[in-house]
Amino acid sequence: MPPELQRIGLVHSCFREKFGIPRQPGLVAEARAEIEILPPFDRDEAFSGLDSFSHIWVIFVFHQCQTENGQGQWKATVRPPRLGGNQRVGVFASRSTFRPNPLGLSVVKFEGMARRQGKLYAQISGVDLLDGTPVLDIKPYLPYADSLAGARSGYAPQAPPSQGRLRFSEQAQAQCQQFARDYPGGHAALYRLIEGLLRLDPRPAYRRNTQDRSERYAMRLLDFDLHWELRGDDIHVLVLAQVDGDSTG
Amino acid sequence: MPPELQRIGLVHSCFREKFGIPRQPGLVAEARAEIEILPPFDRDEAFSGLDSFSHIWVIFVFHQCQTENGQGQWKATVRPPRLGGNQRVGVFASRSTFRPNPLGLSVVKFEGMARRQGKLYAQISGVDLLDGTPVLDIKPYLPYADSLAGARSGYAPQAPPSQGRLRFSEQAQAQCQQFARDYPGGHAALYRLIEGLLRLDPRPAYRRNTQDRSERYAMRLLDFDLHWELRGDDIHVLVLAQVDGDSTG
Repeated sequence: MPPELQRIGLVHSCFREKFGIPRQPGLVAEARAEIEILPPFDRDEAFSGLDSFSHIWVIFVFHQCQTENGQGQWKATVRPPRLGGNQRVGVFASRSTFRPNPLGLSVVKFEGMARRQGKLYAQISGVDLLDGTPVLDIKPYLPYADSLAGARSGYAPQAPPSQGRLRFSEQAQAQCQQFARDYPGGHAALYRLIEGLLRLDPRPAYRRNTQDRSERYAMRLLDFDLHWELRGDDIHVLVLAQVDGDSTG
Repeated sequence: MPPELQRIGLVHSCFREKFGIPRQPGLVAEARAEIEILPPFDRDEAFSGLDSFSHIWVIFVFHQCQTENGQGQWKATVRPPRLGGNQRVGVFASRSTFRPNPLGLSVVKFEGMARRQGKLYAQISGVDLLDGTPVLDIKPYLPYADSLAGARSGYAPQAPPSQGRLRFSEQAQAQCQQFARDYPGGHAALYRLIEGLLRLDPRPAYRRNTQDRSERYAMRLLDFDLHWELRGDDIHVLVLAQVDGDSTG
């Protein structure tokens, strides 16, 4: 019988909407998040020994891909971005977020546990997790069982390439300096986050295939909307526009 | 909100009880299973393209570790066999089957899809899955995202060692020949399965720590009970006793 699942945690992430999230974990090392451990699971001893592991598995819910009764929205086939968005494969041959059971699986870097104002947090990086994501399980990553370097993987043999060069408008540069004041690691870290994300080219596959590169894009990141456009091989960051806080944090 | 989960599949495995199952996948290559894909998910196109992947993730339910309402039976700390069974770590720092949400995660070798008598099966090997296990999701293994050879893993840095030498009694040898008639791969394959399992030493950690090696053990495998005892460094297979079929297959 399928289990009655409970949230053991809740993700607070730099990613406030789906657009722009790296398509797998580990692609942007600077992408940080915290998993707030929810009662009754927020006991220090339940995580004792986890600090001897460098990486953890997070099993979570694709909560924005559910029907009203909580089931997955799915079709038998999907069009993975890696195939240019115009070739279909079976949903079980993909890591699509639209699945019969809306379960996600990500290995992330484990930075440690922290307790603030009575709440317990697991700090992680290299994430591809949306803010507000319900977490169902945390397990240690075991290289001897989980790491299969020689495994054959059909249409996605390598990480998607990083490409292009980042250019900031004067306005964006000043705004980046300002937002960096509250960002752990300061300006250099915030710059690396923006650079890592935009060089992965978050545009939908059907846009990438067009010659028209003049369109302007925006993604919500932390507490701002990041606006950019492409000019030749350059990624021009135009504006970092403050938004009213609507995060779960 | 946690999802309403549905079984997408049901495992038919050589492992008919928990005792003796390898503690992680990949440890006994010969351990085979099939996932019967359940309606409405048993459509060929939902698996199209999966044959270009050598390995798949199986997310499943530890169905023998649930409470009556389907939740996980758990404690904040567990005693992993790898630590000799006498040292405690947090449940989230372990791969214990007793977890707040009874979710299991195994990467297994994908041998292909098969259709028999109208039913669709995913054939897998190197499994650590109990017969009757409900499957919630199948995802392709992506080495670029999932394989972290350099990850640090505290108390379980390497696969548990295989040890000892297998000896068969005359009776066991004859019985093994007989059971091998119905086993795919025949006698050599069945021998490798038994050897792989017993050389992992399935005994509970508290037994391994005793000097008394005279006890006799038994595990249910396929349609027989496999009886063995230890004599010095030798693993003596005594009897393969036929049992009445109670499998889900």
